[in-house]
Amino acid sequence: MTGTRGYECSPWQLLWRGLDLSGLTQTESTFALSNGHIGLRGTFEEAEPRGLPGTYLNGFYEEHPLPYAEAGYGYPEAGQTVVNVTDGKIIRLLVEDEPLDLRYGHTTAHHRVLDFRSGTLRRETNWTSPTGRRVRVRSERLVSFTQRAVVAIRYEVEPLDGGLQLVAQSDLLANDPIEAETGDPRVAAALEAPLHGEYLTATDHRAVLVHRTSRSGLRMAAAMDHEIEAPGGSDLRTDITVEDDLARLTVAVDVAEGGSLRLTKYLGYGWSAQRSIPALRSQVDAALAGARQTGWEGLLAEQRRFLDDFWASADVEIEGDPELQQALRFSLFHVLQAGARGESRAIPGKGLTGPGYDGHAFWDSETFVAQALTYTLPGAAGDALRWRHSTIDKARNRARQLGLRGAAFPWRSINGDECSAYWPAGTAAFHVNADIADAVARYLAATGDAEFERAHGTELFVETARLWMSLGHHDPHGGFRIDGVTGPDEYSAIVDNNVYTNLMAQRNLLEAAASCTRQPDVAARLSVGRHETAAWLAAADAMLVPYDELLEVHPQAERFTEHARWNFRATPASAYPLLLHFPYFDLYRKQVVKQSDLVLAMHLRGDAFTDEEKRRNFAYYEALTVRDSSLSAATQAVLAAECGHLELAYDYFAEAALVDLRDVHGNVRNGLHIASLAGAWIALVAGFGGMRDHDGNLSFRPQLPPDLERITFHVCFRHARFRVDVRRGEATYTPTDGESVSFLHHGETVTLTGEAVTLPLPEPADPPRPAQPEGRGPARRRPLPAADAGASPGTATDAAQGDATGAAHRTADDP
Amino acid sequence: MTGTRGYECSPWQLLWRGLDLSGLTQTESTFALSNGHIGLRGTFEEAEPRGLPGTYLNGFYEEHPLPYAEAGYGYPEAGQTVVNVTDGKIIRLLVEDEPLDLRYGHTTAHHRVLDFRSGTLRRETNWTSPTGRRVRVRSERLVSFTQRAVVAIRYEVEPLDGGLQLVAQSDLLANDPIEAETGDPRVAAALEAPLHGEYLTATDHRAVLVHRTSRSGLRMAAAMDHEIEAPGGSDLRTDITVEDDLARLTVAVDVAEGGSLRLTKYLGYGWSAQRSIPALRSQVDAALAGARQTGWEGLLAEQRRFLDDFWASADVEIEGDPELQQALRFSLFHVLQAGARGESRAIPGKGLTGPGYDGHAFWDSETFVAQALTYTLPGAAGDALRWRHSTIDKARNRARQLGLRGAAFPWRSINGDECSAYWPAGTAAFHVNADIADAVARYLAATGDAEFERAHGTELFVETARLWMSLGHHDPHGGFRIDGVTGPDEYSAIVDNNVYTNLMAQRNLLEAAASCTRQPDVAARLSVGRHETAAWLAAADAMLVPYDELLEVHPQAERFTEHARWNFRATPASAYPLLLHFPYFDLYRKQVVKQSDLVLAMHLRGDAFTDEEKRRNFAYYEALTVRDSSLSAATQAVLAAECGHLELAYDYFAEAALVDLRDVHGNVRNGLHIASLAGAWIALVAGFGGMRDHDGNLSFRPQLPPDLERITFHVCFRHARFRVDVRRGEATYTPTDGESVSFLHHGETVTLTGEAVTLPLPEPADPPRPAQPEGRGPARRRPLPAADAGASPGTATDAAQGDATGAAHRTADDP
Repeated sequence: MTGTRGYECSPWQLLWRGLDLSGLTQTESTFALSNGHIGLRGTFEEAEPRGLPGTYLNGFYEEHPLPYAEAGYGYPEAGQTVVNVTDGKIIRLLVEDEPLDLRYGHTTAHHRVLDFRSGTLRRETNWTSPTGRRVRVRSERLVSFTQRAVVAIRYEVEPLDGGLQLVAQSDLLANDPIEAETGDPRVAAALEAPLHGEYLTATDHRAVLVHRTSRSGLRMAAAMDHEIEAPGGSDLRTDITVEDDLARLTVAVDVAEGGSLRLTKYLGYGWSAQRSIPALRSQVDAALAGARQTGWEGLLAEQRRFLDDFWASADVEIEGDPELQQALRFSLFHVLQAGARGESRAIPGKGLTGPGYDGHAFWDSETFVAQALTYTLPGAAGDALRWRHSTIDKARNRARQLGLRGAAFPWRSINGDECSAYWPAGTAAFHVNADIADAVARYLAATGDAEFERAHGTELFVETARLWMSLGHHDPHGGFRIDGVTGPDEYSAIVDNNVYTNLMAQRNLLEAAASCTRQPDVAARLSVGRHETAAWLAAADAMLVPYDELLEVHPQAERFTEHARWNFRATPASAYPLLLHFPYFDLYRKQVVKQSDLVLAMHLRGDAFTDEEKRRNFAYYEALTVRDSSLSAATQAVLAAECGHLELAYDYFAEAALVDLRDVHGNVRNGLHIASLAGAWIALVAGFGGMRDHDGNLSFRPQLPPDLERITFHVCFRHARFRVDVRRGEATYTPTDGESVSFLHHGETVTLTGEAVTLPLPEPADPPRPAQPEGRGPARRRPLPAADAGASPGTATDAAQGDATGAAHRTADDP
Repeated sequence: MTGTRGYECSPWQLLWRGLDLSGLTQTESTFALSNGHIGLRGTFEEAEPRGLPGTYLNGFYEEHPLPYAEAGYGYPEAGQTVVNVTDGKIIRLLVEDEPLDLRYGHTTAHHRVLDFRSGTLRRETNWTSPTGRRVRVRSERLVSFTQRAVVAIRYEVEPLDGGLQLVAQSDLLANDPIEAETGDPRVAAALEAPLHGEYLTATDHRAVLVHRTSRSGLRMAAAMDHEIEAPGGSDLRTDITVEDDLARLTVAVDVAEGGSLRLTKYLGYGWSAQRSIPALRSQVDAALAGARQTGWEGLLAEQRRFLDDFWASADVEIEGDPELQQALRFSLFHVLQAGARGESRAIPGKGLTGPGYDGHAFWDSETFVAQALTYTLPGAAGDALRWRHSTIDKARNRARQLGLRGAAFPWRSINGDECSAYWPAGTAAFHVNADIADAVARYLAATGDAEFERAHGTELFVETARLWMSLGHHDPHGGFRIDGVTGPDEYSAIVDNNVYTNLMAQRNLLEAAASCTRQPDVAARLSVGRHETAAWLAAADAMLVPYDELLEVHPQAERFTEHARWNFRATPASAYPLLLHFPYFDLYRKQVVKQSDLVLAMHLRGDAFTDEEKRRNFAYYEALTVRDSSLSAATQAVLAAECGHLELAYDYFAEAALVDLRDVHGNVRNGLHIASLAGAWIALVAGFGGMRDHDGNLSFRPQLPPDLERITFHVCFRHARFRVDVRRGEATYTPTDGESVSFLHHGETVTLTGEAVTLPLPEPADPPRPAQPEGRGPARRRPLPAADAGASPGTATDAAQGDATGAAHRTADDP
């Protein structure tokens, strides 16, 4: 295990110095590169040693049967799993006939850098072969944000004492065997060697492989081309070979001391469900042509410009906690990588950083990732929502299959078809539909993108509203009820009147009616009549929100507060995550919360609660919430801040931001928790910034936690971009671009035109810290001074609290 | 499909005249023979044509993995499936080198008779071979009630014109390939050729085969021996051969006209999880020795004596409806066959008549089958409960695994380990534990069997009471709640305070406390202290029973009556059973009832409801109950009768009694619905007889439905046996054996000593018939006069009502 020991603190980089082979699987995730279309895990160029190699194309999957010992109507029959596609980043090296393999010989120096501004992964290794030959290897690689089909790698080897024969083998490798993670032989069979070779060619320094999956019938092409330089080299020979699953350029050269062998490798990737072999081949050839025309330096320059733009509108600064500063930029960088160039493909729960969750996208793509992107890179948020809209026919069919009207979007999917094999925590979690509508409403309010509304938004609102009307009903006791559904908290299921679901459905119905009023012709095309919108408004008006008069809190769902409380005292730390040690039935029927549910309702539908209710509810649910999901800490940070618990908010914020760097849930090997990383931004901006967007109105209630000196973040809203600086006692809003914008600051209207505005902050309240379940509180965050942080990063929190349960629990947590 | 066309009405027989090959799979179930230990489906001796051949040994199963696309803690990993063991009933016949196969040549006469008094299956066939040779084949077979390891078959062939060469091959055949019913390749692999040969021997006319299963490691032996007679035969030659999966005695003989070939085949069966090959071989050899000593006629005589005894204490007579008379005796005969000699093995849902439900036993074994047996063949009820007790350690372990105290008996199992792969309708249906306790209480009250209580009963009470204490809790709002469980109705799941469950748990807690008072030393051995019993009584006292004050009915579970009502009007007949056409989530969250739940509570815990509540509740749930389970009609008959709806009760009673003869659920091919057949007895005795046994006190409220002239049934209670005759206006209680007994007749205490007592019946009330969901009412039963019934049996009901949904719905109904 790596822990965080290997990461060094640096504001704009993730830096790992030294060689730790046991942690490779984890660092392959954190060092992954992606542009939302192509993803490469951070495996060494030499292919081995390796953890879990992976190259992914967004949307490219194989199907497999979903087995059921007892089947049921409407159960999805086919699963989808992201495929590890043709690996083009492999460059094997032989040093005087000795393969460079870091498990052998001596590695005298080694570091890797993921650079958030250059958008590259750099690596430098000094290696002595078992026979005593010394070389320095430097590599840098990028997945281009500007040329989305392109990957480029620069690989350079220098002999360190005396001339050497160097042989480099640059590969395209398909069907690399990887240990299966499934126990089902049918699934394993479908995913073993999932690619069938359809076409291959190789000439000069170029090669193309085209493959197709058996069941899903998707076709992909990978191509490579190379530039070879060998200053100080002699007798350079190259050879290219190709077979079904392997294309290889071999370069052999004698390099004198002071000379080097430098390979620049360009990769082009493409896939399609429909296009022919020649069409796909042309596509990747064209990508390579573009890349070679731009050239390595040109690609680097484009990459940096793209990132300069991104950071100008999205950067976050934290003064007083250098490790969190790094973690926040790491988070935003990976959120960007997950969402940047997906272009009507999903944003999977793990982005393209690993095979976790089978590569599926869930509700958190809208609720967390799209929320952060809406205010930092709105175009990417729009793209993610366009993907949802592109699957609306599948969602309509699913609703029909379930006996419902409107559209029922899948709980987990790659192509839009439901892949959830356990319906109580899958299909029954209908809130995903309101979450999509909420993300659409947020995006529309933040961008004013009427074209999007007309083409996608209104239809998404209408079809999800129709779903709620068929899911709910007006009961004879009064009120519009939504029965038998599952809210965000997966330690409850199949409940009546889940407050989160009902409030989000209410917003969904109101937004649908409002959108139909704004876009009457679209509404007419969708056959929305006056009676239908009136019914939506009536249901929204009558929406049941249960309340426990005795305890004076909102039950998460009806009768929740009458259930037995989980016996936390009798639950040892080793029994978390609970779902691996207790049956669902026991979790479902007791008061124990996996992840924010009612608390998330108080964030996203904060307008539906009084301040007093928020305080009481927050305290009540804090005592029940175990955070066995990575989707919880960020939301708890937001509400902790709103309720005045700034230290607690800071602790949760740190947990969300460090979720992957500290491997809090013990499963970063499978990929990063993109929603938690987006949640770190939310914790900062909605937590300490107090940003809310209820009904499309922007407001801030900035507060500074005691341990920080200053927080700065940027917001895109409508045609304005502005920066918010929160310091002790005051906050400054500075327009950076675009038009004027209005919002509330602690309840007071501010209109930002050309000038910065500085406003005072209220005194912090500092109410007593609420209690968490035994051993489940977040680790108390105590930032180190910058000087120390650089020397011994990431040890502060661990040292501060012996308990440190945050780091102890490991989970197969599903979002 | 057979429908009922082929069955002829006969009071003491199931008779089928004529050849209907398409209905073989169904009649193999109805004509099955069993003694509770060995079961033979009613396949022809010649082995083909056949439907679904099957030979079963109670408790003999193979294991297979249970697949989950998304696994969860506590999910059972291994399933169990009853194995089709070595088939010994095969006697193939060649007539002048032409195999007797009813698909070829001409069958000029054919009938089969299941005789309820002789306990045999007889068959007679006149057949003309394709080359014009005519023979008559007569066979009779029995599975001995008195020698439980023994099957005997008499098979006789006569040439009808001219002498013939006859060759008979009498087989023991293992691993007969049968089409798999599962789509899971792992399950299919485990069940294809599940038996591995371990030992074989054959000499003279005898052979033994010993086999073992791979995964469950159970060993079985089958042995055969023969008597051969050939009056009028010449040149008789026999030969015996044996190989791994086949032992065969071949008999060849020339038979002159007027002569015959007569084979008497004795079979011995045994199995064990522990005994060695020699031990098992000895066991079956000894069984054969016993059978041969008794001889064919002796076995027939023993069989008849056993059945005479049974009918003397269990017979039911119905005057006015000959088809139902036949159906009732058919029902009782099969209940007897399922429960007679199981001897500490389960009574599976299908008995030993087919592979349905994988051969598993469910709660209905206690609630329906043991209930009927308690008052007709109490020893068999005790045996079934002894089986439960023998699995108590597995149930304790299961409770531990689930984080509970006490014992959690499985929802479905063969050996006592939970095999339910869908926990919301399996493990969550904890009521099975209260059902077991209820059956124990009933058995104890009806038999006064203190030895049973000390050895088994108290422990069953105590461990199930402990389970309820850990499943429920006292909530701050007052009341003892049981949350997140599933009641009998499988169209609801994971509900709070299911009335049936809570009331049955209440009884369980009270019985446990009472039993501990009666057996203080047993209680002490089980570490039951005064505090524990006090806690049981306090929980029982505080048990929550939700009530809807607005609608003035009991909700089946909390909030049930606030859920949306199922849209029955929009549900076509083809959409039943609903579970095959709608997702669970939709069924669960709406008011629609698969099977009696609250209504079953009003039967078994009728003491907890007022008459007025019963009437209102019954009417309310009648309008919601679709009877997609065979476990519903009987209970609806009982409550319909209690609420004065005698015609409706009669209709439900007929549906329960005819469930398999009319193949009401379209799945009799997999075996009979033993609980529904027991339910027919319950419908009659608890329905029209009005028998109740609340708190161990026996009471009757006889009423006669308008269409019947007289009902007679027998009851065993304590040391008394007596007959109840219900006629128009009066009922007579006649002691037939044993001591005196007291009970209530329509509220009036009666003590029966030596003399019959005749008492008047109150005037029937005849309230308006309650409505059922559209198209889901039972068919109106109109009995034919006896003369007509004989000529055209079973057409009366079909003709009477065009709707006839009772016959239309087909279901994969789980009990």
